[in-house]
Amino acid sequence: MIDLRSDTVTRPTPGMLQAMMQAATGDDVFGEDPAVNELEARCAAMFRMEAALFCSSGTQTNQIAIKCHTQPGNEVICDADAHIYQYEAGGIAFNSGASVRLLPGDRGRITAAQVLTAINPDDVHKPASTLVCIENTSNRGGGSCYDFEELKKIQEVCRAHGMGFHLDGARLFNALIARGETAGQYGTLFDSISVCFSKGLGCPVGSVLLGNKTFIARARRFRKVLGGGMRQAGILAAAGTYALEHHIDRLQTDHLHAAAIAGELQHCHFVENLLPVATNIIIFETRGITASDLVTRLGAQGILCNAVAPSRVRFVLHLDITERMVQQVIEKIRSI
Amino acid sequence: MIDLRSDTVTRPTPGMLQAMMQAATGDDVFGEDPAVNELEARCAAMFRMEAALFCSSGTQTNQIAIKCHTQPGNEVICDADAHIYQYEAGGIAFNSGASVRLLPGDRGRITAAQVLTAINPDDVHKPASTLVCIENTSNRGGGSCYDFEELKKIQEVCRAHGMGFHLDGARLFNALIARGETAGQYGTLFDSISVCFSKGLGCPVGSVLLGNKTFIARARRFRKVLGGGMRQAGILAAAGTYALEHHIDRLQTDHLHAAAIAGELQHCHFVENLLPVATNIIIFETRGITASDLVTRLGAQGILCNAVAPSRVRFVLHLDITERMVQQVIEKIRSI
Amino acid sequence: MIDLRSDTVTRPTPGMLQAMMQAATGDDVFGEDPAVNELEARCAAMFRMEAALFCSSGTQTNQIAIKCHTQPGNEVICDADAHIYQYEAGGIAFNSGASVRLLPGDRGRITAAQVLTAINPDDVHKPASTLVCIENTSNRGGGSCYDFEELKKIQEVCRAHGMGFHLDGARLFNALIARGETAGQYGTLFDSISVCFSKGLGCPVGSVLLGNKTFIARARRFRKVLGGGMRQAGILAAAGTYALEHHIDRLQTDHLHAAAIAGELQHCHFVENLLPVATNIIIFETRGITASDLVTRLGAQGILCNAVAPSRVRFVLHLDITERMVQQVIEKIRSI
Amino acid sequence: MIDLRSDTVTRPTPGMLQAMMQAATGDDVFGEDPAVNELEARCAAMFRMEAALFCSSGTQTNQIAIKCHTQPGNEVICDADAHIYQYEAGGIAFNSGASVRLLPGDRGRITAAQVLTAINPDDVHKPASTLVCIENTSNRGGGSCYDFEELKKIQEVCRAHGMGFHLDGARLFNALIARGETAGQYGTLFDSISVCFSKGLGCPVGSVLLGNKTFIARARRFRKVLGGGMRQAGILAAAGTYALEHHIDRLQTDHLHAAAIAGELQHCHFVENLLPVATNIIIFETRGITASDLVTRLGAQGILCNAVAPSRVRFVLHLDITERMVQQVIEKIRSI
Ligand SMILES: [Ca+2]
Ligand SMILES: [Ca+2]
Ligand SMILES: [Ca+2]
Ligand SMILES: [Ca+2]
Ligand SMILES: [Ca+2]
Ligand SMILES: [Ca+2]
Repeated sequence: MIDLRSDTVTRPTPGMLQAMMQAATGDDVFGEDPAVNELEARCAAMFRMEAALFCSSGTQTNQIAIKCHTQPGNEVICDADAHIYQYEAGGIAFNSGASVRLLPGDRGRITAAQVLTAINPDDVHKPASTLVCIENTSNRGGGSCYDFEELKKIQEVCRAHGMGFHLDGARLFNALIARGETAGQYGTLFDSISVCFSKGLGCPVGSVLLGNKTFIARARRFRKVLGGGMRQAGILAAAGTYALEHHIDRLQTDHLHAAAIAGELQHCHFVENLLPVATNIIIFETRGITASDLVTRLGAQGILCNAVAPSRVRFVLHLDITERMVQQVIEKIRSI
Repeated sequence: MIDLRSDTVTRPTPGMLQAMMQAATGDDVFGEDPAVNELEARCAAMFRMEAALFCSSGTQTNQIAIKCHTQPGNEVICDADAHIYQYEAGGIAFNSGASVRLLPGDRGRITAAQVLTAINPDDVHKPASTLVCIENTSNRGGGSCYDFEELKKIQEVCRAHGMGFHLDGARLFNALIARGETAGQYGTLFDSISVCFSKGLGCPVGSVLLGNKTFIARARRFRKVLGGGMRQAGILAAAGTYALEHHIDRLQTDHLHAAAIAGELQHCHFVENLLPVATNIIIFETRGITASDLVTRLGAQGILCNAVAPSRVRFVLHLDITERMVQQVIEKIRSI
Repeated sequence: MIDLRSDTVTRPTPGMLQAMMQAATGDDVFGEDPAVNELEARCAAMFRMEAALFCSSGTQTNQIAIKCHTQPGNEVICDADAHIYQYEAGGIAFNSGASVRLLPGDRGRITAAQVLTAINPDDVHKPASTLVCIENTSNRGGGSCYDFEELKKIQEVCRAHGMGFHLDGARLFNALIARGETAGQYGTLFDSISVCFSKGLGCPVGSVLLGNKTFIARARRFRKVLGGGMRQAGILAAAGTYALEHHIDRLQTDHLHAAAIAGELQHCHFVENLLPVATNIIIFETRGITASDLVTRLGAQGILCNAVAPSRVRFVLHLDITERMVQQVIEKIRSI
Repeated sequence: MIDLRSDTVTRPTPGMLQAMMQAATGDDVFGEDPAVNELEARCAAMFRMEAALFCSSGTQTNQIAIKCHTQPGNEVICDADAHIYQYEAGGIAFNSGASVRLLPGDRGRITAAQVLTAINPDDVHKPASTLVCIENTSNRGGGSCYDFEELKKIQEVCRAHGMGFHLDGARLFNALIARGETAGQYGTLFDSISVCFSKGLGCPVGSVLLGNKTFIARARRFRKVLGGGMRQAGILAAAGTYALEHHIDRLQTDHLHAAAIAGELQHCHFVENLLPVATNIIIFETRGITASDLVTRLGAQGILCNAVAPSRVRFVLHLDITERMVQQVIEKIRSI
């Protein structure tokens, strides 16, 4: 099977497994795991941020960040398609007791002007707006990337209104590669950043949260209370360090693969409204067939993908998908 | 000043004050306040529901109902303009840890078909959809009333999917009068109903939550934990009982007043998109002037009203507004 | 019946009802109720604190204060018998997500030394200790009063460790009268104070929370989200203002009544371990009879009181108990 | 250094690492990780419970269990020394909004009689008592084991009062070995059990929660919202399966080591009130030296241990401590 359901399905490569098994470990709850400490230090340096915290998932790093930035009764501003609202099990309310203000973005991307109008006035009827969350790339936006200038403008709005500014960077490395940007640029812009290692970077488990020292000290407490403190986590962290060295530049390959498949899809009779392909994600509306039926049909051809809405299908490219598999996908969809 | 900002500004009439001062009181936390018990029993009978609970505000009865129907991590489905989301200080998340799924209704009214598509699948990424909330009349919808047949259809969807069905009836009596419906009809349709006494009914303080006995017993616990248990609350409850006897039928007058003012507004140069006036609320978009400026200008003429959006103004009629005041309002707006 | 169950059972006097009826009211959610504003201003002045907030119950003012002082995951230090832990329906956890650290005090009174040892170290396994709550007088401590010098020492510990210092002053006026202290002394010591009007002061409903302006502005938001915002609340607030003028000095009478009854109780065969009577509360252990049976037996004699533990009975004196009733109580208990 | 601070410091053995490296993995969020599924199935069978869930820590499995058994505003009954209260960062309140009722047990062990008196009456002032949590062995009780007959009695109390019954079995395997009991016995007694793999069993990361199918389905949702869903978690789960096969019986060795060291400690001048050693934990009071100073002094001798109170020291034996190290410890403490 060619598994295009998500880049989370990536399995560790032999090189990564080797790195994991050789990791020097210790008890990370005591702060003594060398491999965890190394990954955290490396991420902080890369993003030019003060500190970092290794966690078990991107949902956990996002949820901890939201908790650190808000108090119960506050409001989080984000795109209506944001992962934090759509796929984190209602965690904004569950973990933080915070409300959401959902903006209709352009393929998952909101603007400074939209944020400005969404800030609540100082009125007891309304939650205080205290956090803006951005997702880059946007999963439900089809892997779309933000324009960095717009992010700067949103940051200015946040500063001017005393709001925190968090980046859900589950697939940020895809954006960096696609746009020729650097991690450091993002580190200077955001108050906190979550990056994920178990997606495009190919690790089995892990996400890192970045922020200043005070922020990360508070995050460490929340990680503990969520049960996210792990003991000899260095085995997992070592995979992250390996991925930083070996799996970032190659994301370009996934993007080329996505473009190649999309090039074929736009000629397919069962496709309409193919979203522009900016990185490793392809999203299109189905024509003359439901998403669910198309998924079944592709499955029968050995291609696994997801229905993300009743007439919407998603393909995700990643490091377990070889060039040969891409050719097979193209042939299969041509023949449907 | 003629105060059209809200029907909450109503002050007790001499007759109501008299009833309050003569109320037989007791300690309601011990369940011993005769006037509270009388109001609760009367409301339960009127709505053909098993039990009722007197609380200090409509926000409190709504919030308690949401808490009773949900668990942290569940999702509430409602119109995007719903009071519970827009004006209750983020309480859905704060008090219940629940998410919201906001639907774009027609002047605050959602349909069974919309509800159906909004129910989350059984997927750990998604909160379980466990409650549908209706607001009738809809405040931000301009006092619009639901079609009762649609409510029945929504109830069927709720039943079929094991979801609770709550009515925010802060202004339900306006709907009953406008549509010729009865409280009992609503009691048989909803699992819980919140009605408010401090708005059109003219009481100083108070709201009643209705449901079955088990539900109200749980609600009583949540009222306590929110600090909503009051001691000799009979003084307030007596106003409610008085209002049920004297202030329901007269809501028709407020509706006629609203229609009369709206009739004039539709000819005013500064008005566009006047929403249909169904009950005691008038909402229109401003033309050639901001809402805020128009409010100031009307204020200078002795008319208080609210800007509910940057170019949206609301007038609310109520029992402290006499026919003569309505005439004055019409004259003033004609002259602007 | 002579109702000694609690001082909450007090009903408004004719003078108080008169004051309520004549109250100038407005919409307090808009901050426009003159009688509410007057009571809040008067309380703030009396306690030499910046601001005040009128709420519907002492539970609500305490719960709001705890919420303002803590974040979810913090810890509150208090006596194991504190009202906030024992009688507020688990609100510390429910409303604030905060843990409790319970200290074994002397009749409800804790010491600075105890507080010091209860502060958690900076360790992710432990909640951060951020609030100390005092109850004066202590209800379950039998109306015991703190030594003011000890309170000063506790304040120093709070200051030194960056912890908030809250007073549950549900019966603080009893302590002021009994100890010859002033409200202003307390206002300079605590970060926030809750006082209750529906107990010894004889009002039907109401409590006031005191703090600095920022604190009260935040408290106002939390009052709203709990559904504690009331519209024409001035009717209730007017009772509070009346009580401040007429019902404080007379608390001395309740104390004398309590002492007189206790004087008799100490000779009764069914009493042992009578706690020292400091204010208006009498608590004793029963001998040769369960608390529940004694309550039933006294009830048959026309005296209502409470079993506060399997072999512990409480009498509470208040303004609805006349000298003649006190004589009757003494005669009845003598004859049992 | 000989690290007796905790059994959490255990590092994977070569055999365990080998098993991890060869694990067949998949995406566990999609339920497709074979190694995770195998560990969950094996644990369920072993405990004769319907289902199991692999999580990242014992804190997480306990916190999820508490959340499943309670609603906000409920109360959890446990020993005052329970890990869930003492070391889980205030999670009972943070994650579940639940109160605690702390009982003074005998070395961490509570009785059915104590539980019975701790159940709150049906009174709105009091949280509903809905869960009893047991910790076996008890960490702060010095590794003490429950008498199984007492656990049966507690279960009867839980059944009779409709309360859930949860076992924090972080070190349950130590109890099973010490008392000759079976996992299946425990599975039939408790509604949910948390077992930990990163302590005595020597795994780097991981804990399993057991319960019936409905319970585990709900737990899976809460794991997701806490960010505990991990992708290719099979690498960690494989360590757990390896430990079940190779590291249970050998716990007896840790117990013998503990007994040997304790045998020496009881003659040491700096020791008093050495708790009976039942499993792998040694706790004693210091004499003539603070716990902190003793820890420093032992550290200088190459022995790491913990001060668990100002004059209380804890040693924990585990699989990284060889017989030779035990001899060294005995010689060092003899010489102090
Ligand atoms: Ca992966
Ligand atoms: Ca939570
Ligand atoms: Ca809450
Ligand atoms: Ca009113
Ligand atoms: Ca009273
Ligand atoms: Ca370990």
